[in-house]
This record gives sequence, structure tokens and C-alpha cells, in this order.
Amino acid sequence: MLDLFATPRLRELAPRVTTFLEEEIIPFEQEWMQMPFTEVEKIIRAKKPKVQAIGAWNLYHAKHHGGPGLNLVEVAQISELLGRTPFGHFTFNCQAPDAGNIELLFQYASPAMREKYLEPLLAGELRSCFSMTEPEFAGSNPVLMGTTAVRDGDHYIINGHKWFTSSADGAALAIVMAVTNPEAASPYMRASMILVPTDAEGFELVRNVPVMGHPGSGWASHGEIRYTNVRVPVSNLLGPEGAGFKLAQERLGPGRIHHCMRWIGVCERAFDLMCRRAATRELGNGVFLGEKQMVQNFIAESRAEIDAARLMVLHAAGKMQEMGQHAAAAEISTIKFFAANVLQRVIDRAVQVHGALGVTDDTILSYYYREERGARIYDGPDEAHKSSLARKILKNYGLSIRNN
Amino acid sequence: MLDLFATPRLRELAPRVTTFLEEEIIPFEQEWMQMPFTEVEKIIRAKKPKVQAIGAWNLYHAKHHGGPGLNLVEVAQISELLGRTPFGHFTFNCQAPDAGNIELLFQYASPAMREKYLEPLLAGELRSCFSMTEPEFAGSNPVLMGTTAVRDGDHYIINGHKWFTSSADGAALAIVMAVTNPEAASPYMRASMILVPTDAEGFELVRNVPVMGHPGSGWASHGEIRYTNVRVPVSNLLGPEGAGFKLAQERLGPGRIHHCMRWIGVCERAFDLMCRRAATRELGNGVFLGEKQMVQNFIAESRAEIDAARLMVLHAAGKMQEMGQHAAAAEISTIKFFAANVLQRVIDRAVQVHGALGVTDDTILSYYYREERGARIYDGPDEAHKSSLARKILKNYGLSIRNN
Amino acid sequence: MLDLFATPRLRELAPRVTTFLEEEIIPFEQEWMQMPFTEVEKIIRAKKPKVQAIGAWNLYHAKHHGGPGLNLVEVAQISELLGRTPFGHFTFNCQAPDAGNIELLFQYASPAMREKYLEPLLAGELRSCFSMTEPEFAGSNPVLMGTTAVRDGDHYIINGHKWFTSSADGAALAIVMAVTNPEAASPYMRASMILVPTDAEGFELVRNVPVMGHPGSGWASHGEIRYTNVRVPVSNLLGPEGAGFKLAQERLGPGRIHHCMRWIGVCERAFDLMCRRAATRELGNGVFLGEKQMVQNFIAESRAEIDAARLMVLHAAGKMQEMGQHAAAAEISTIKFFAANVLQRVIDRAVQVHGALGVTDDTILSYYYREERGARIYDGPDEAHKSSLARKILKNYGLSIRNN
Amino acid sequence: MLDLFATPRLRELAPRVTTFLEEEIIPFEQEWMQMPFTEVEKIIRAKKPKVQAIGAWNLYHAKHHGGPGLNLVEVAQISELLGRTPFGHFTFNCQAPDAGNIELLFQYASPAMREKYLEPLLAGELRSCFSMTEPEFAGSNPVLMGTTAVRDGDHYIINGHKWFTSSADGAALAIVMAVTNPEAASPYMRASMILVPTDAEGFELVRNVPVMGHPGSGWASHGEIRYTNVRVPVSNLLGPEGAGFKLAQERLGPGRIHHCMRWIGVCERAFDLMCRRAATRELGNGVFLGEKQMVQNFIAESRAEIDAARLMVLHAAGKMQEMGQHAAAAEISTIKFFAANVLQRVIDRAVQVHGALGVTDDTILSYYYREERGARIYDGPDEAHKSSLARKILKNYGLSIRNN
Repeated sequence: MLDLFATPRLRELAPRVTTFLEEEIIPFEQEWMQMPFTEVEKIIRAKKPKVQAIGAWNLYHAKHHGGPGLNLVEVAQISELLGRTPFGHFTFNCQAPDAGNIELLFQYASPAMREKYLEPLLAGELRSCFSMTEPEFAGSNPVLMGTTAVRDGDHYIINGHKWFTSSADGAALAIVMAVTNPEAASPYMRASMILVPTDAEGFELVRNVPVMGHPGSGWASHGEIRYTNVRVPVSNLLGPEGAGFKLAQERLGPGRIHHCMRWIGVCERAFDLMCRRAATRELGNGVFLGEKQMVQNFIAESRAEIDAARLMVLHAAGKMQEMGQHAAAAEISTIKFFAANVLQRVIDRAVQVHGALGVTDDTILSYYYREERGARIYDGPDEAHKSSLARKILKNYGLSIRNN
Repeated sequence: MLDLFATPRLRELAPRVTTFLEEEIIPFEQEWMQMPFTEVEKIIRAKKPKVQAIGAWNLYHAKHHGGPGLNLVEVAQISELLGRTPFGHFTFNCQAPDAGNIELLFQYASPAMREKYLEPLLAGELRSCFSMTEPEFAGSNPVLMGTTAVRDGDHYIINGHKWFTSSADGAALAIVMAVTNPEAASPYMRASMILVPTDAEGFELVRNVPVMGHPGSGWASHGEIRYTNVRVPVSNLLGPEGAGFKLAQERLGPGRIHHCMRWIGVCERAFDLMCRRAATRELGNGVFLGEKQMVQNFIAESRAEIDAARLMVLHAAGKMQEMGQHAAAAEISTIKFFAANVLQRVIDRAVQVHGALGVTDDTILSYYYREERGARIYDGPDEAHKSSLARKILKNYGLSIRNN
Repeated sequence: MLDLFATPRLRELAPRVTTFLEEEIIPFEQEWMQMPFTEVEKIIRAKKPKVQAIGAWNLYHAKHHGGPGLNLVEVAQISELLGRTPFGHFTFNCQAPDAGNIELLFQYASPAMREKYLEPLLAGELRSCFSMTEPEFAGSNPVLMGTTAVRDGDHYIINGHKWFTSSADGAALAIVMAVTNPEAASPYMRASMILVPTDAEGFELVRNVPVMGHPGSGWASHGEIRYTNVRVPVSNLLGPEGAGFKLAQERLGPGRIHHCMRWIGVCERAFDLMCRRAATRELGNGVFLGEKQMVQNFIAESRAEIDAARLMVLHAAGKMQEMGQHAAAAEISTIKFFAANVLQRVIDRAVQVHGALGVTDDTILSYYYREERGARIYDGPDEAHKSSLARKILKNYGLSIRNN
Repeated sequence: MLDLFATPRLRELAPRVTTFLEEEIIPFEQEWMQMPFTEVEKIIRAKKPKVQAIGAWNLYHAKHHGGPGLNLVEVAQISELLGRTPFGHFTFNCQAPDAGNIELLFQYASPAMREKYLEPLLAGELRSCFSMTEPEFAGSNPVLMGTTAVRDGDHYIINGHKWFTSSADGAALAIVMAVTNPEAASPYMRASMILVPTDAEGFELVRNVPVMGHPGSGWASHGEIRYTNVRVPVSNLLGPEGAGFKLAQERLGPGRIHHCMRWIGVCERAFDLMCRRAATRELGNGVFLGEKQMVQNFIAESRAEIDAARLMVLHAAGKMQEMGQHAAAAEISTIKFFAANVLQRVIDRAVQVHGALGVTDDTILSYYYREERGARIYDGPDEAHKSSLARKILKNYGLSIRNN
């Protein structure tokens, strides 16, 4: 943790979280990686009393939501700690997409929905999913969307096709983005967020999309969903009609901070494994891998890049916290592509330093190598964020460039 | 195919091979990717008569070995064609490690072993493996080896621990590198190659090492093997005692050409998918992905790098063919690291251009992304080849640098 | 020289050229670098009889033009040899822009102009320049041009503003691109090439544009020119009216081959200096720079990239020679950006390996570092060539993209 | 300026400094770049009263040394502002090497030397130089040194050969590193710092070493010096005998912060020019350079890298300020290579975006391009810092690696 961003409650909480991960999670990681997540989920959830005992349940949430009440810069630094194992966030019930969905429900859910969904989510008894991305439309242009929710009396009738509805498998509810106001002047005012129970008629989990060789299961999966004449009451609407993008943006800002810091946790884990290997692998004749300058180069560049990424993300988090998401928009685009690329390079170097071992599943590295390739794509590909950043900058020089 | 390296028989054979792949293999690829390889093997082997009918069985081998009798530069170009699908080489019975093992057996096997193993290998009825890499020793320094073969009368008694004995699962025989002459002055004269039937007592396939999320099966697997007091007759020795490295080197030279050209086939496949996507994916408002300069940059850099790699590999193959492996040693080190890095970059760009689709298994790209990460590691990591090349060059400037 | 591209006459000529450079040019290079080029020119031209004695005068030109009559692939390889010193091409009277201008004059000049300009150019008694680039218009879009040539009876009246009219200082003539047919349907049919004597009224060499710290002089300079009501007879037109771009393209194709191979010569020079330094610079305690893997990495990557670039350029030259410029258009775009980037990286690494010495003028490296930065810009910047290449490729996938 | 690192006095001082630069310096920059520095010096020094009027004379120094008394983190941020023009630091009398020399003299100079040298240095009436680097020894290994100072009664007799004694031309004094205790056990305890007046007999400025095409003059030069039996009184010793390295280290730490922040100033200048060009250069048909994604990519990557570098340098400065140089050693190595590489890339992209204009001296970019190439070399080349950082890290993993 950097002194520059440390706070008293963070200094107090972080060691408890780290110790918990080191004692209760990381020793079982290798074993859990070979199990279906639906099994792992039970084991982890059984630890909930221990998690509560250290005051870290619902780790991202406000005090009146049962969490420790950290601010964004503090949460960010906790997210790094959790990122050191694939099971970190889930353990503390602050995993995506539930953490973001919980925020939405707190703000916009009706009392009935709160009771039915929000309380069990906070209790870790239910899971949820967020259904936005569509295979037919480029994610880099979020206003393109084929899913519709048509008003029919007191109900919406939803039709559409989604994928990368992560964690749909076993979820009790989906928050769905659908076009409700196709004729709205602004393309950013056409879609809404609607809560859909997954047992609603017409909700079909077509498959867990196989990603990098595995369909996954439970929380650790990415669903393809068909919505066919799904009827839900109008009261399932979250926020005003047409506010879907606005809410998605609100959600994405902190979400990107969380992701970026999680990646930095992954980086530190990979970096640690790389250094450990370099320091202990003998090449013969008493010469160790770490004495080789090409390996030193990997270590030095990784150290520099991880440090750079952490400072940038925390700086952006601080700006967002103090001045709001809009003011920090350029910084958020910047960290999204910068940190995702650092992540890929650091993991890649760690794999390389491990040689043949690096591509096996005997370390966590090959999991990270394939699983985190998505980081440069989801929540906006590198190219979209770079172009967006450049356009923001050039606007200050008098050049207006429309998207596309 | 480049005119510069085309030959009449290549011009004649290549289209037949390509057509076969396009009609008999690629349409089933997606389906086969989801099956255990042991099942796929049966389907592919059932096509053997068709393969023979187009004169492409044992595609790498000499005429008197039942192959078409191509030279190295021709074989190299065929290997590129086959590389466009993960099932290419297997279809024509020229897959690693069997193709290299067949060469060894032709040269060094006793008549009895030829009959028992070589003929069925050529017929595609058996499979073999090559057992060299050890987890405890750095592959970049091949003279370090823990496996021993101790003479006991007319037998060797073999003890050791290997991994990345690829395709051991289901193989009938292993060709094992073991130290027979630990006291030899040169560390390069201490090991020998010995044929070991996999049903020999003491031969244990500990596991198929899980690689990038999958243990694989059959030919598509990487075995961890324990040799515990395995007894084989001295006549199972291949070549002279102590010649193991020499034979391994002889095998590795053409092997690297084959691999590099296979990678270029993979590159062309990925490049084709990338361009297809760029040309057809609409971003909205009639703008296509391929109109974006960042995507154009990916395409242009990939085109340049693939062309560069192909020319370098074929040039090295030509030099090896005419002047021998020793003369082409610098070129072989160069293409090994150069082509492996081009491979990784091109696949990575193709994934990126596909967005979320790129990390799914709905295209072949995610398979290549994880499977071909090993290319920068096996047969010598980048770092070993770069250092070796630089040391060769600096020797001409009067600076002798020992390895390690 | 690569066996693959060697020819008997090349094998015969190349050593003579190399020996000449090593004995008559390179020993004086350091001294000449400190002199105005106008002085160096006299010294070099005084060696003309010696150059003629080895049959290398007008080295690029056909036999009936007084040259050795090499084909493009041969010329390319000679250009590499000459590239090893900044004075190479000039020594053999095949320097840009004169070599290209001579070709134009051979094809299109009137008998009077031939006598007045072509013969002395071939004799090395005159120099010429090529006046195309304009400061006000982006060079990446060659159809934008402000200079006009308006017909007035038997004369053209030329007005315009050019820069990077290289070697204008001291030239006897300029070949000027000017719009003669502004109303032509195709923007590629609007400009023409016109010969303008530099002593014509209204021709003003405003300045030698200072480039990377130096305005240069004589051949080694880049002129800014104003054309103010310059009158030249219509017979000074080279080729048909409106054919300017066509002729420029014809000229640029081989010109890019020459440049790319010259850059490879520069690369080899830098590479040689880098290796020499690495092999001889002691870091203390008997450890030499070349033993450090980071330096080995520089050497290995440079070797690979130079070899790749050479093969690509010669392959492109061969294709152009056999199938024409149009057929080789993609290859020419590819080598232009690929080789220029290799050039920059190799020089940069050589500078780095030299430490403080590398930025001084005590080696040729700092000259190359600053002088060759232009390579990624002139004759089309990287970005234009990459975009052009990608658009050519995507056309085959059914996507037509207009420039801009 | 980042809020995170802003302080009240910085907020107050920075705008005055910026305004001064914008009104009194930058408008004349282009003109001064063409003049010998010895002339420019007079013009700039004539502005001293104005500089004093805004309280910015001796900008880096403590209040009792006539400066504003900023701390390191504040000075760092001022150094960025000054870095936006090559004349920035000189204007405020805080240019290297004088600023560092002044610190040394404050701490270690005798009263006589203070009066003779320190006062006029603080007044901007004298200049000094720092004479450490030797052409015969690798700068990456600072304990190798050929210059000796042998005690002869009350004097030292100095003999040696130095270069990159920057600003020696016209300096009144040199601070010289020379071996005084060759037999000391630690190689780090053998050299001392000694003040040598440049008019001492035996002090010879052999030449201003030509760097990137120019020998420079006055402050803007890099001297090669011969010391031949130079006699100076023992009282010219600065600090204890054998403390040379310790003092050099003390000086280098803040020096690297200053340099890195100066580079960030250069980056911001180049970035601003790049964006200005991208926003205003038309490619034809109303399309501007900045609409091209390849240019947007340059802008986005530059923005990210500059922001990363600034945060890292200021974070390192903060750590050094609070915990001392030793505690911040890893951070200082990291910023040295990280920032120097960002600098080179950002300048390079800005040149590229300017096209042909970018290599001319019509903008400041070509000056920065060639002048700042040294940043990756001086004060320790990239490779030395990377290796040093990796060795520090690996020590924590139990692997001790000696230098060389």
C-alpha cells in the first residue's frame, strides 16, 4: 500500500483481509481451480461467518448496507488485495456483477424488489447478472442495441439476444438493458434498465459461452441469453425510462476503478511468482535465472509498469471521488487501456520466465494468461478508449470529431 | 506460395492438399475441437484411403518411405498449408513427434524394431513420443539431465522423470534421452537415445499435464512420465552411445523449420479471420471496423511481419538444405524467436479485432491464443536463442562468451 | 550478399565497389562529415577516373547510358553496399535525386534538353533536383498541390511554393510538379512534370531548410523554393500533360527499393559498430559489454530485423522486376514502412550500446540517428503506407475504403 | 499541476514562473536557437532584475541562499514548467550543473572559496562545471576512474582525462572527481571531489565534444578536458577524502528528480505541438490529421505515458523527501529509465505527426529529438538502472547478484 493513499481505516482493515486470503483462500486455490465453481461457491460461502467476524462482509458497501463504508480510493486499494486470487472478491461478497447490481437496487428498486432480491444478495444467498452486451452489435458503440422492451399495460414485453451476461448461470435475477424509447431524440436516451427474474417465462440461458476453452459454471461463466416475450411488471423498471445509459455509465465508472485495481492485484501476484522463479531456478553451474539480464529486464519493466498503473488508477479514483465521474472521464479512459495492457504484458513475462511450467496449470499464471485477455476488450476495447481520450483532448484544440 | 520458392512438384501437390483440408477437415474443425482427441483420431484416420488417393500420406517422407519425397524447402511450404488447422499435420501422418521419430527409426532402428514400430508408424496405426524435457532442469541448458540409463548386461536400466513428453498418452513407444556416459569429457557426449515400449514395466504416465486449462488426451496431450527401473535390451539404443545430443540436434533443425512454417500457417489463418471480421463488422452508421486506422494498423503490421517471417524461414530452410544444419545454425536461432513472436502478436491482434467474440471458442482464435503461447518457450525459449545468436555473432568480433 | 539473390555479374562487381569504398571513401568519412558538402563534392568528383576504371560510374544505369546495366534486384543489392557510408551513392554518380531524374530525361527529354542537361548529368558535371513536396499540403495526399503551370502560348508560367526540393542548392535544373489541368476529372491527371532551369527568372531558392540542426549545403541540402511567374517553353514538359503522377509513381517504385536497400546498408554499418563496441568495451573486471544479455538482445533483434527487411525488399524488387510496379504495389508499401522502422530501431540500439560516445559525432551513428529519422516520413509516412496496405487487403474481402 | 501534489506556495509561484517564460523567453526561443549560447547568455542574464522581481531567482535554492525555499516535490513541479523551453532553467539560475555545484559548495567549500566562487555563482555572474565522466571507462560502473589526485605537501597534483564535463566552456571552476585513495578497501571510497579553477595551469579544454551535429558553446556544450599536473591547494577538497562517491550520490538523487521532471516538461511541450498540429492540419476534403486513429493512438498513448511518468516521479520525490535517498533508491532507478523512454517516444510521435516539418528546425521538436536522446544514457544508461532495480528486487527473494 502506498503511504500517499493510505488512510487509518484502510491500514486497519487491509491486513485482516490479506491474512484471511492467505489462510483461508490461497492454500486451496489450486484445488478449487479444478472444481466447478458451483462447488467452490458452497465452500466459500460456508466461510461467511469468519468473513463477518473480521468485519469484511460486503466489503465494498456502505455501513448502512452492511459493509465497512470505505470510500472509492479505499475500495480501490482493497480491490488490489483481492485481485491476488481469482476467489478474492467472491469471498467478501463484493464480486462483479453483484456489487454493481446491489448499488443499483439500493438506489432504484421498489420495496418489494428490495426485500425479494436485495436482502438475499447482501446476505450472499442469491446471485444476479447484468445483461447488456449483444453479439450482433459492436460493444464499442453502446447506443446500438437490438433488445426491446415494449410497454403493454402494466408490463414490459422484452425480446432480445444477449451474451456475456456474466454469471447468469444460477442467478436469480438479471438487470437487462432494453430499448424502451426508440424514438427518443438522443440515442443515449432510448434504453432502460429492467429487473427480470431468471425464472420468468421466455428467459432462456442458451448456453454458458465457452471462453478460452471452458464454458465455466455458476458465477464463473458468461451466459448467452434469449429473451422471448418476457413479461415483467412496469415496477421492475430501475430508474426512469430512458435512463439506462446514464445508470450504466454511473455503474461503469467505479466498476472500471475496481477492475483496474483488481488487475493490479493480478499483476502483483504474477510479479511475485516471476521473481520467486527467477531467484530460485538454477540454470546449471550455480547460475540462477535472475542473474540473466533479459530476465532482469522483464522484472524491471514490470515493476515500473505496475507502479505506474497503480498510481494512475488511484489518482483517477481520487479525482472521481472528489470531482465526480464526469470530471474524471479522461482519466478513466486512460487507466482502462493503460492498466489492461500492463496486465497482459506482466502476465506474459511471468509465463515466459517460468518456461514450460508457465503454460501448465501447475501455477495460476496460465489461468491468468487466458482469462485476463478479455481485459483489453470488455468495458470498451483499447481502441475505443484511446480514440475517446484523443477526441476529448483534441476538442480542447478546437477539433470536434464525432464517434464513428 | 511465393514464386521464389515454388517448385513444379510443389505447385502440383499443394492445391490437392489445400482442397483436402478445405473439404475434409476444416468444416469439422469446430466440432472436433470439442471432442477428446482420441475420438477425433479415429475419424481422421478413417480418411486415410482418401489421403493416399491424393498421394499425400506420410507427407514429409521420402518416396522409399511411402511419402512424396519433398525436399526441406518444399516440406516447409506444405507445413504452412497444414498449419491453417490444428488437425492438418495429423491428417497426413506427418505430425510431431511421430515424423521426427520415424526419421530416427529409419536411420538407427534394428530390423526387429523397424518391423515392430516403424512400419505401423508409417501406416498410421501406432503413435510414439519423444521423452527429453525434465521438470527439474532448465530446458535452455540441454546438457543438464537427471534421467540415467545404466548398463546391466545386455540391458539398460532407466530411471528418471520427464514431462512435456508430448503425445505419450496412447503411444506405443517412447524415444528417451538418458545419460549413459556421465563421465564423458564433453557434456554433449553423455546422453543417448533409447527406444522404450510404453508397456515396459516401470514406465508410468503420471498424468497428462494440464496446459492452458486442459490436460488433453491422446496425441493432443503432454505427458509427465516416471521411469522406474525400466529395463530395455541394449539393441534398443538408437545410434551410438553418447550420441543423444547429436541426434537431437539433427532432429531439431528440420523440426524448427516445420514448426516455424506451421506457425506461419496459423498466422495466415488468424490474419484471414481478422480481415474478414474487419471487412464485415459494422460499427453503426455504415462504418465498418476495417475503416478504422487502428485496425488497419493491426492488418498492415501483421501482413508485414508474416511476410518477413515466411521469407526468413524459407531462406533458412534453403540454406540448411544446401549447406547443412551447422552452416544454418544462426539462421535457425533467428527464425525460432522471430517467428514465434510474430505468431503471438498476429494471433493477439486477431483476437482484439474480434472483440468479445475473440475470447470465446466460437472461433479458432482463442484456441490458438492459448495453445501457441508455448511457441516462445518450447525448443528453446526466446532468450536462449537470442543469446545464442548474439554469442555466435560476437565470436566473429573476437569475443568468446560461454553459455551461462 | 545472399546466395538466393546473387548473380554472376553482381558477384563480380560488388567486391570492386566495396573495396573502392573501403579504400577511397570510408577512411575520409569522418573528415568530410565536418566539411561543407560543396567542398566534399570536389574531392569525390576528382576520383571519377578511378571509379570509371572499375566500371562503376553511373552505377545504376543501363549499359547504353554508360552504366553497368544491372537489373533492379542487382541494383538493390549494390545500393545496400553504398548505404554503408553517406558518400556511397554520390561517389558512383547514382545519388538521389539525380539517378531518378536521369531516367526521366532519358525517357522524355527533348534532344536539346538531353544535350544540355542529360549528358552533363551522366558525366557528373551537373546536378539536378526534384521539386514536388509543398509545405502547405500533406504529402500523404499527393493530389493536393498548389503549384500551377499555366499555358501562355508556347510557354508555361509557373507559380508555386515547394520545400524539400532536395539538392536544389547548386543544381542546374529542377523537375517541377505543377498543376496544368486543374479541371481533369481524375485528381491524378491534373499535374505535369516540367523541367525548369534554376537560373530561370522567378526561380528563387529561399533557403536551405535547416533539418535536424543543419541547413546543409550543395547536394546535401533540402531547398525551399518559390516559383514566381517562371516562364519555360512548352518543350520542357516531360511526358504528356497530366501525366505527372504517373511518372512520379514510376519513379517512386524503384526509388523506394533503392532507399530501402540503402537503409539496410546503414543498418549493417550501425550493426557492425554496435557489435564491435560490444566485443571490445570492458565494463571492468574483465567483463565485456557483449556479455550482457540486454546488449545481446539488441544484437539478436537487430540481426533478425535486418535480415527480414533485406529479404522483403529483395523479394519486392524481384516481383517488381518481373511483374511490374503495379503488381508489387502492396509489397512496396510494406517494405517502405517496415524497413524504415527497422532502420530507426537498429540505429537507436547502436547509439545506446555506445553510451555517451553514441551521441557524439566521434562515430557516424549520431549522424544516422538524426538524418535517417526522415525515413519514416519522406516518400509517404508510415501511417499512409500502412493504411494503404490495409485498404488494398480489405478490398479483397469486399470492403472498399476511400482515402481520407 | 496535480492537485495531489500542489502546495499553497507552489500554486502561488508557478503562475508567475509560467507567465515569465511565456512572455520573456518562449517568443525568442526560435531566434536564440540559431545563436551561439554565449550570446544568448547575455540576453537572458540581462533579465535577472525581472526574474528577481517575481521572486524566482535561484529558484531551486533555500531562502537563506537567495531562493524561494521550495521542498523537493515543489522544485520537481517547477522543473517541469521550466522544461517546456530549453532556456527555462538557465533563466532562473537553477540550471545543471551549477545548481548541484552550488549545493556542494554551500556544504563543503571553505570561506575563501565561498566568497570567490559561491557568491558569484548565486549572482549568476560565474558558471561552473562538474568533471566526472571519462571516455576510457564505462559510466555504468562509476568506480572505474583513471583520473588521480596525488598529495604533494599542501597540494593535490591532478592528472586525468574527462569528457562530458558539461558547460566547461567559459566556466570559472570545475568540480573534479579524482582518485585520491587508490588503496581504500571499498572501491566506493577511493575518489574525492576537488575544486579546480579552470585557469589553473595544466587544465586544458581540449574541445567542446560535438554532440548530435554541434559542438555547442558556453553553457550549452560538453567539454573534453585534460588535466596535466594540475596543482590545487588541499583546501580545495570538498568534503572528506574518499567521499567523492558519497557526495556524487547525494547530488545525483535530487538531480535525477530534476531531470525527470524537466523531461516531462519537454514531453508536455511536444504533446502540445502534436495536438495543435493534429487539430489544424488538413489532409484534404475537410478531414483533419487528428481524425485519423493512428494519430489518435499517438495522442492517447502519449497522454497515458506522460501522466504515468509524472505521477511516478513526484511519488519518488515525495518518498525521497520524507524518507531519504537511500529509501527511495529503487524508485529513483525506476523513474530514470521509465521517464527517459517516455520522453523519447513522445518526442518521436510528435515529430511523426508533423511530417516533413517535424525534422526541420522550424519547430523545436527536431532539437528535442536529437538533444534528448542522451537522456537514456547519461546519469546511468537504461540497462544499468534496470539491472540495478531487478537486483534490488531479487535480493528480497534471497538472490544476491553482484554488479558485473
